Amino acid sequence: MVWQWIKAISPLATTLSSYRRDQFASDLIAGLVVAIMLVPQSMAYAMLAGLPPQVGLYASIVPLILYAMLGTSNSLAVGPVAMVSLLVFAGVGALATPGSPEFIGLCLTLALMIGVLHIAMAVFRLGFLVNFISHPVLVGFTSAAAIVIGFSQVKHLIGVSVESGEYPIQSIISTLSNLGSANLATLGIGVTSCLLLILFGYGLAPLLKQFGVAEVTAETILKLGPLVAVTIAALIVFGGRLDQSHAVKIVGDIPSGLPGLTIPPLTLDAIRSLLPLAFVITLVGYMESISVAKALASRKRQTIDADRELLALGMADVGAAFTGGYPVTGGFSRSLVNDSAGVRTPLGSIFTALFVAISVLFLTPLFYYIPNSVLAAIIIVAVAPLVDFKTPLKLWHFSRSDALALLVTFVAVLATGIETGILLGVVASVVMLMSKMSRPHVAEVGRVGNSEHFRNVDRYDVQMTAGVFAFRIDESLYFANSSFLQSYVMEQVANRPDIQSVLLICSGINEIDATGLDVLKTVHRELNDLGIGFYLSDVKGPVTDRLKLAGVDESFLRENIFMSADAAIQKLSVQAMEA
Amino acid sequence: MVWQWIKAISPLATTLSSYRRDQFASDLIAGLVVAIMLVPQSMAYAMLAGLPPQVGLYASIVPLILYAMLGTSNSLAVGPVAMVSLLVFAGVGALATPGSPEFIGLCLTLALMIGVLHIAMAVFRLGFLVNFISHPVLVGFTSAAAIVIGFSQVKHLIGVSVESGEYPIQSIISTLSNLGSANLATLGIGVTSCLLLILFGYGLAPLLKQFGVAEVTAETILKLGPLVAVTIAALIVFGGRLDQSHAVKIVGDIPSGLPGLTIPPLTLDAIRSLLPLAFVITLVGYMESISVAKALASRKRQTIDADRELLALGMADVGAAFTGGYPVTGGFSRSLVNDSAGVRTPLGSIFTALFVAISVLFLTPLFYYIPNSVLAAIIIVAVAPLVDFKTPLKLWHFSRSDALALLVTFVAVLATGIETGILLGVVASVVMLMSKMSRPHVAEVGRVGNSEHFRNVDRYDVQMTAGVFAFRIDESLYFANSSFLQSYVMEQVANRPDIQSVLLICSGINEIDATGLDVLKTVHRELNDLGIGFYLSDVKGPVTDRLKLAGVDESFLRENIFMSADAAIQKLSVQAMEA
Repeated sequence: MVWQWIKAISPLATTLSSYRRDQFASDLIAGLVVAIMLVPQSMAYAMLAGLPPQVGLYASIVPLILYAMLGTSNSLAVGPVAMVSLLVFAGVGALATPGSPEFIGLCLTLALMIGVLHIAMAVFRLGFLVNFISHPVLVGFTSAAAIVIGFSQVKHLIGVSVESGEYPIQSIISTLSNLGSANLATLGIGVTSCLLLILFGYGLAPLLKQFGVAEVTAETILKLGPLVAVTIAALIVFGGRLDQSHAVKIVGDIPSGLPGLTIPPLTLDAIRSLLPLAFVITLVGYMESISVAKALASRKRQTIDADRELLALGMADVGAAFTGGYPVTGGFSRSLVNDSAGVRTPLGSIFTALFVAISVLFLTPLFYYIPNSVLAAIIIVAVAPLVDFKTPLKLWHFSRSDALALLVTFVAVLATGIETGILLGVVASVVMLMSKMSRPHVAEVGRVGNSEHFRNVDRYDVQMTAGVFAFRIDESLYFANSSFLQSYVMEQVANRPDIQSVLLICSGINEIDATGLDVLKTVHRELNDLGIGFYLSDVKGPVTDRLKLAGVDESFLRENIFMSADAAIQKLSVQAMEA
Repeated sequence: MVWQWIKAISPLATTLSSYRRDQFASDLIAGLVVAIMLVPQSMAYAMLAGLPPQVGLYASIVPLILYAMLGTSNSLAVGPVAMVSLLVFAGVGALATPGSPEFIGLCLTLALMIGVLHIAMAVFRLGFLVNFISHPVLVGFTSAAAIVIGFSQVKHLIGVSVESGEYPIQSIISTLSNLGSANLATLGIGVTSCLLLILFGYGLAPLLKQFGVAEVTAETILKLGPLVAVTIAALIVFGGRLDQSHAVKIVGDIPSGLPGLTIPPLTLDAIRSLLPLAFVITLVGYMESISVAKALASRKRQTIDADRELLALGMADVGAAFTGGYPVTGGFSRSLVNDSAGVRTPLGSIFTALFVAISVLFLTPLFYYIPNSVLAAIIIVAVAPLVDFKTPLKLWHFSRSDALALLVTFVAVLATGIETGILLGVVASVVMLMSKMSRPHVAEVGRVGNSEHFRNVDRYDVQMTAGVFAFRIDESLYFANSSFLQSYVMEQVANRPDIQSVLLICSGINEIDATGLDVLKTVHRELNDLGIGFYLSDVKGPVTDRLKLAGVDESFLRENIFMSADAAIQKLSVQAMEA
């Protein structure tokens, strides 16, 4: 009984009840591979977010366990990610000094709010909200954010201090103008780390193949890049005591031991000022997660339950808020690694969390000499491929309005900031969608030969019926296109004095909202004033129900609505002859 | 040559070239009737906007002439209107003290900006933007705004001074709590004026009919309401010197003479802070104008050119900015009066402007003793019928989401202010539209008997083809519904291991955007990974063009796209049998 109940809540319980030894081995290895990537990454992303490195590690323990218990994806690797970290830095940084206790507290509050928003989206079935972020907006946003993220790390990479400006573009310019005052030792470590990471990421694979290394072994070696870079860099700093002799900035003391319980400070003021940020992070984070999870699941004919995912990600963020972490979500690259490392069940994520916990318990002294510049290198190499030059060019050929949406988002993110930027991108694409919707496809129709079929007069050789204007509209009647119908009908009527009846063929109308209904009534009244009849045909069930609900006259429903265009035209042509 | 050119710019020129004596008589009378209404109204609305009364009069001269020269409606009566005046008061009042020279200057700037926005909308064909304001949002907005307008005048009606709060609801509460300290003389005049106006508006018509007054005469008498109320109130104040003996607030000195040239002060700061307000007023004002103009034109089988209207209204606002006025638009009630008074051509508006000019030149001394309370009464009686209780109830039966949009707008206008309120209403209705669009109508189809027709399996008795999943989507593929298609297909494939081919019947897809294309590609790739074929049929011309533009493989276009579902199923069933 209790077990049934647990199973209903946690998909993991079902998995465990038939867990096999071979699955265990696969999950353990994948969990370790992801952890090796995650430990340096989580510290680097915490730095990107303006937080101490341990916050990144803390965000990689409990949230992963909670997601594993509640989520429906086997491969999704939850934890700190670059995009969300940048949003945290930009948004919370406007309210408090990065790294300060106040800043850390606000990050906990933000994580809790993001968790609650996810859960609210699950409860109220608002998952469709991610649709607002169209593909072009996402590409524009990701490219611009990658540039902002990359440049934000240059100061750590080369060891200079740069004032961050109000807008991203200002920070980029001031970074560029400070290139001259680089700390050479830091710069050396940073650039070497970048080259090493690029080697592991791109150059090593063909080399290993050439030397006849087995593919599985080769794949595992490639994932060691960040670990190798961090180790070498830390050894160099340690060997030359570069932190003292050359002022190379290092990670320094990290408190060892598991995170304790933290209580996010909840003031009305903080909640109000964090709300837009929480909303943007929720949408962006959920979108990244769900798209990765879906892509990985579909390869195995598995499905992802969007509402369950919202709940699981929400609980992961709530977990982060209460264990000293900061906002997390499902990451793109680590999930791919998790998948290709052969993870079989969500238990893989729990193993990752255990390995991170072991690091926090026993390995923090080893992290002391890690220079910030190698962490910056990890971030820069990770985000550089996200700057996408191909898509804008392709889109330009495909559709100018889509290309424009991309451009607006890209420029807006760089010029006005990452939050305002994505909102402007969303507004631009909604405006363009409304523009398209405001001109629905409409066709005057006539009878094909002696058949019962009616087709577009512009494309078929059809017979017209004198005095009758019959047309079809291929779109539901929403407020977005309401003004069109009225203008179209009235223009036809004004230009063709012979029209005695207007027939709207409703086969393409799936739904009608209050504005659409209002327009239908207006058209009916205006035609009536001119002594012109207004008729409908092929009205779908749901639309008829709506007309009845709206209190349309019984007589109109009976006399002015026909089953088919054929029936309508037969009746109307008789009327026209009698007149 | 020059004449042709003038005709192309000004529809009025064409009208004048065949102007007849009977048209002249009709236009002159209608012009006078509207002017009699407009003179007291324009002063009242100026007061509502926080401006001296002459500003209302100035806004009723040049703008009317400019509209008459450029507009395409014969009946639209341009000038100050209640809604725009309230928006001016609320928006500009947040930046400067109402009535101050700075306030008056900002109103000129605002009028110029609104004019330019109208013209920009004409040039870039952005008229569709009014579609964003759905019928429920408009009703909610109008009702709430009427309440805000009405209560804002109570202080003038009863002669108390009330601090206006940050949010409308605060002002309403503080007005109510000040009712006790009313100036009794002012209150008496105000209430009497209200009763008189209500009598003219509602009670007098049946009375006149009973006494056998001819209908035309009766209609003219009814329109004299505001003039009669203003005259009686002014005579009472003058007779009892109530302005001195009882501190009744009066209009006082109005400078006589025509307005001079005014230059709107254009600072970057002013423009930036007025921009959202200008945008809202442009949309709300244009929407009111165009809907009245369309309704009146359609009665006579005339049409309205939306772009020309934008241009004409824009020039009217530019005219207001340079002649000491404030933002104007086409008013609802005066246009109806203009129409029913028998106006024939736009020359009617020019006559109205001339009568207003004569008033400003010679009658201003007569306006001295007009009490503010009678102007407040004119406003209150005008806006009270705009509070609409019936529509919300009807909508609640018709559609919960439409009713919700109305409620959100209504509450938001009262709680957060008139500008934010309408924006929240628009956001709410766009979100609900996206929610509907995110679940497009989709149907699995099968063959009807041995015919070539394919219909919904849930509604028809159809034959299925083994291994083939054929479905139809009745909506264009936009980013708004993109996630649906992928989820739907993948869910079917995950649940039905027998599926070997997926056929998407595209007869309902009129357009495809970049996100839609991306989803099609993803579905194709994911199905491909599973060894499932992905086919399209009934692809419309514009969609095929898009696929080609997007660089879809030549081989896919040739082999995976069929002319009809019939052709596709024939081919796929052969494949299935061979497999």
